[in-house]
Amino acid sequence: MIRSLCASASLLLAAPLWAGTTAPDAPPADHVAWDVLEGLTTEVGQRLAATPAEARARDWSVARLKALGFANVHVEPFTMPVWLRGAESAEIVAPFPQKLAVTALGNSVPTPAGGLTAEIVAFDGLEALKAASPAAVRGKIVFVNHHMAVQQDGGSYGEIGAIRRTGPSIASAKGAAAIVIRSIGTDHHRVPHTGVQNWVNGVTPIPAGALSVPDAEQLARILERGKPVTMRLVLEGHPAGTGPSGNVIAEVPGRDPTAGIVLVGGHLDSWDLGTGAIDDAAGLAIVTAAAKRIMAAGRPLRTIRVVWFGAEEPGGFGGEAYAKAHASDRHVLVGESDSGADRVWRVKLSTGDPKAPLAHRIIAALSPLGITMGEGPARGGTDVEPIAAVTGAPVIDLGQDASRYFDIHHTADDTLDKIDPAQLDQNVAAWATVLAIAANAPETLAPVAKAP
Amino acid sequence: MIRSLCASASLLLAAPLWAGTTAPDAPPADHVAWDVLEGLTTEVGQRLAATPAEARARDWSVARLKALGFANVHVEPFTMPVWLRGAESAEIVAPFPQKLAVTALGNSVPTPAGGLTAEIVAFDGLEALKAASPAAVRGKIVFVNHHMAVQQDGGSYGEIGAIRRTGPSIASAKGAAAIVIRSIGTDHHRVPHTGVQNWVNGVTPIPAGALSVPDAEQLARILERGKPVTMRLVLEGHPAGTGPSGNVIAEVPGRDPTAGIVLVGGHLDSWDLGTGAIDDAAGLAIVTAAAKRIMAAGRPLRTIRVVWFGAEEPGGFGGEAYAKAHASDRHVLVGESDSGADRVWRVKLSTGDPKAPLAHRIIAALSPLGITMGEGPARGGTDVEPIAAVTGAPVIDLGQDASRYFDIHHTADDTLDKIDPAQLDQNVAAWATVLAIAANAPETLAPVAKAP
Repeated sequence: MIRSLCASASLLLAAPLWAGTTAPDAPPADHVAWDVLEGLTTEVGQRLAATPAEARARDWSVARLKALGFANVHVEPFTMPVWLRGAESAEIVAPFPQKLAVTALGNSVPTPAGGLTAEIVAFDGLEALKAASPAAVRGKIVFVNHHMAVQQDGGSYGEIGAIRRTGPSIASAKGAAAIVIRSIGTDHHRVPHTGVQNWVNGVTPIPAGALSVPDAEQLARILERGKPVTMRLVLEGHPAGTGPSGNVIAEVPGRDPTAGIVLVGGHLDSWDLGTGAIDDAAGLAIVTAAAKRIMAAGRPLRTIRVVWFGAEEPGGFGGEAYAKAHASDRHVLVGESDSGADRVWRVKLSTGDPKAPLAHRIIAALSPLGITMGEGPARGGTDVEPIAAVTGAPVIDLGQDASRYFDIHHTADDTLDKIDPAQLDQNVAAWATVLAIAANAPETLAPVAKAP
Repeated sequence: MIRSLCASASLLLAAPLWAGTTAPDAPPADHVAWDVLEGLTTEVGQRLAATPAEARARDWSVARLKALGFANVHVEPFTMPVWLRGAESAEIVAPFPQKLAVTALGNSVPTPAGGLTAEIVAFDGLEALKAASPAAVRGKIVFVNHHMAVQQDGGSYGEIGAIRRTGPSIASAKGAAAIVIRSIGTDHHRVPHTGVQNWVNGVTPIPAGALSVPDAEQLARILERGKPVTMRLVLEGHPAGTGPSGNVIAEVPGRDPTAGIVLVGGHLDSWDLGTGAIDDAAGLAIVTAAAKRIMAAGRPLRTIRVVWFGAEEPGGFGGEAYAKAHASDRHVLVGESDSGADRVWRVKLSTGDPKAPLAHRIIAALSPLGITMGEGPARGGTDVEPIAAVTGAPVIDLGQDASRYFDIHHTADDTLDKIDPAQLDQNVAAWATVLAIAANAPETLAPVAKAP
């Protein structure tokens, strides 16, 4: 059973499934993923949630998905709070006048007209900020530094990213006038990393920004001189009411409508600084090209649903809207691609038992692509977590190599040139393998109790 | 003679002179070069010529050179035309609205209030622009693309850099409203490369800018769609009268004032986008640390003059002022460091005969540092070419590995983190070797007829 299913899956892959043996009937790599990625980033560019740019992206998406032959292509709209960027700049006023590269974080409020000038108080990490006395912080601009490590699984983003997610609320609660963090990134370019942060209930919103890594290091060197450091900060990003967003949905219809749905997705919105190539046009391109390969091979047993989620970046609004609308749909496997386009190196499955037949077949079929089984449960991501939570649908994670992801993530540098076509193709092959097996599994598939 | 001189030179070097043999008396690396580089880029930052920032840099330089023990530390002022950057932005208005990263080139004139909106006309390289009919260009924004190769000797900067140096005048002569070039750079970051260009006599200055490499590639992809492309351009950089600049001079006095001067330099000014770490705080740091090592080893026979030239970037005003003021000084060897801080790989000498004793000794002593003799005459650079031209002084070029220089050159990314301390030290060792031999050569040294 394993072999025959894998053999059929191999027909759908660009790379031969079995290492060391060349499948003579393997089709050549198609260009669907590249064309989606190149088209969306070129013809739309940035796609900030709930803005006209994201609306243009939805129109582009519907047209492209229809042209690719998907069925039931439609938009499921929702409304959400809007946040817009404005002018932004930072400069050291004293002791060494110079400009620093800064960008506002999501949900920042604007500095006063003419900017905010205040002394810097610096902390090395979130714990140091938490331990600070309000007297040391009050009226000042808080600067939080850190030392983020490069990790293949991107794990440091969870820990270090807390500086961005919670630092502004902690600083405000202690009376800070504003906060600038060292960008949550591992590069050394003058392109600061934006990202969302949410105000804790009861906290007064303050201007919140991120310095590029070189600028954060420069500020740390200036502070080391031991003189008081004064910064003038302009961050005109601001909340702007509510606006329309939406999820774009497309399907490869299955032969048996009662056999459940295999859901794969990525997110259509992006931050506004780059063109959202690695985050997350790549994810859309990968799962869509994989689904297209299944479609090209003939109608699968189960329906494959491809969702291009809206408004992931500002807080997962698309994933929440999807879960609300589709809680009663029978999802038998859900997964998303949202860590760039570098190669998949690890698979995790939350099917309860990793030795269950479906899990076993998927893991075995991914092995020739250089993908190994990871420890611990699959968790999905911001887009599919809500539907998995409400339905108990099994989750699959195809973990991508994140070694250079946080060099680019949420910066102006997130552009098409960062994509490695060979690694993009490996991602498509991996997802096509998963879809071929899951959409055609002959046994009954059903939601399971999720791992804790 | 060669061996004994090299042995004495080896005392001055951080790295042992003879590969494969460890000199037990080699001193540990000092931190002079790093401290100059770190101090200038941190405590002054950008140093645009003839601005208050460059004036602060001169004050900093005089204090630091005196603190290092140099003699005759002083500023030789001059005045020059000033050019200042202003607000700058570019956006595609149609067919695919999006912002592009742009920066003004030196001597650009401002766009009209509210910006300039016009259709793009694109050319692949300078020859294509030269061949264009004025009818195709008139009233449009010219875009010049190119394909700059990475080269160890940075040679492509000469050929491709002509797009920046002469493209604006050619475009204006054909009636263009403005010009944006693909940055003269080899990176893929959203940090455009500025640089000087000069208007040909009789040509009307127009707004002239450079798109970052990813943005130039994006514009090329948009143009490939075949629809008319309209850009809105804001470039508020502008000429701003004349202002003060100056050369900062320091010396290691020689025992014999009649034996001539060995001149080494770099330039103190920088472009305003980064902190001028590789261009050219590194060069100042390298030649100064090398001279300091000679000073520390005891008074040399000849005077070593260290010049931190002002206003190199906008057109070599410091080099011209120095040549005018010091045409009658007896320079016996001149050289500059102005290609970053990556390792020296090649030496060229314009002493007429490369088998002349001095040249022979220098080339032999550099060999253990991995430096080989290059073909062709030494040419110096913008700072020392004028003094070499008026005095006939021999020139030495220590060619640095420029493989990544044009990733960073003239961008916001020119910051301290780009410096590799180990390669910086190799540069210091190489220049200390040159200075030890040239400043102590027992034979009479004199200007020579320059190679053509």
